[in-house]
Amino acid sequence: MPIVEVKMLTGRSAEQKKEIARQITEVMANAAGARKEAVIVTFQEYAPDHYAVGGEIMADKLK
Amino acid sequence: MPIVEVKMLTGRSAEQKKEIARQITEVMANAAGARKEAVIVTFQEYAPDHYAVGGEIMADKLK
Amino acid sequence: MPIVEVKMLTGRSAEQKKEIARQITEVMANAAGARKEAVIVTFQEYAPDHYAVGGEIMADKLK
Amino acid sequence: MPIVEVKMLTGRSAEQKKEIARQITEVMANAAGARKEAVIVTFQEYAPDHYAVGGEIMADKLK
Amino acid sequence: MPIVEVKMLTGRSAEQKKEIARQITEVMANAAGARKEAVIVTFQEYAPDHYAVGGEIMADKLK
Amino acid sequence: MPIVEVKMLTGRSAEQKKEIARQITEVMANAAGARKEAVIVTFQEYAPDHYAVGGEIMADKLK
Repeated sequence: MPIVEVKMLTGRSAEQKKEIARQITEVMANAAGARKEAVIVTFQEYAPDHYAVGGEIMADKLK
Repeated sequence: MPIVEVKMLTGRSAEQKKEIARQITEVMANAAGARKEAVIVTFQEYAPDHYAVGGEIMADKLK
Repeated sequence: MPIVEVKMLTGRSAEQKKEIARQITEVMANAAGARKEAVIVTFQEYAPDHYAVGGEIMADKLK
Repeated sequence: MPIVEVKMLTGRSAEQKKEIARQITEVMANAAGARKEAVIVTFQEYAPDHYAVGGEIMADKLK
Repeated sequence: MPIVEVKMLTGRSAEQKKEIARQITEVMANAAGARKEAVIVTFQEYAPDHYAVGGEIMADKLK
Repeated sequence: MPIVEVKMLTGRSAEQKKEIARQITEVMANAAGARKEAVIVTFQEYAPDHYAVGGEIMADKLK
């Protein structure tokens, strides 16, 4: 029962998350040989002031 | 200092989370031999459109 | 399908982990109302030089 | 810079993990609109005695 | 590309998170030899009723 | 009790991890106002074939 945790900035639509979950599940079934029904995909979304790259908070980078 | 991360769909009451934390801490003390005061339990709750099983987002399964 | 991640120092036996998984699953079924068959428990064990409390690596604390 | 953490039982080959990483990165670029170079995929593999479903350790289920 | 996940109770200001991200990135560059631009720092904040120590939910401890 | 999870490629010495833990704990005490004794730092190290950037496994990038 593979678990795939997707961590990304907020901003993707419900439709996009639905599509990401569907496609990643396909990948796990095809490339990892997992039973499709057993694949779990979770989304954790970060607000721009909760995510930094290179020491700089995204909220500032996006200004 | 064991850390136990509980990841589940939203919907459980504060009372339920309190009880889960209390009981999991007991389990870690009794079955893992951890000092009770040192056990940390965290809750991460997923909205139904942030959690998919079998490629299908829970928000759709629950419709 | 709740996922419970147990993070702790190495040193518990396979028998202990088996018991922890069994009991935490009971807790999730009883206190969270989860279907028992759907509860996932994972273990991530840290070597004493991969875990620090108060700024001090456990490998040094345990000396 | 999306981070995708793949958590699964041990047993997939290096070739399979390479393919999973490649394909999940494509999904994130196509369905999430992420820059391909910025996508990180990590693998965390669980030994069968570190992963339980329904309260039963996989090592026992697989016997 | 080290990823540093900071998990803490809610309550720190945006200014504090900015400073934490900046300083942890320095630590990773200086002490771990990481390229500064490649360091990712994320924040996950827990409400006081989502975090328990010693079996007691923080929301109750803080009362 | 902040928890800071450091996820990086294998290759840093025990001495480096000790220093990283010490310094990150200082950061959390100074910039986040955490009690130093309560800060937990964990290390999770990835083998080069368990970590991909831009769809390419590090083991191949490093060749």
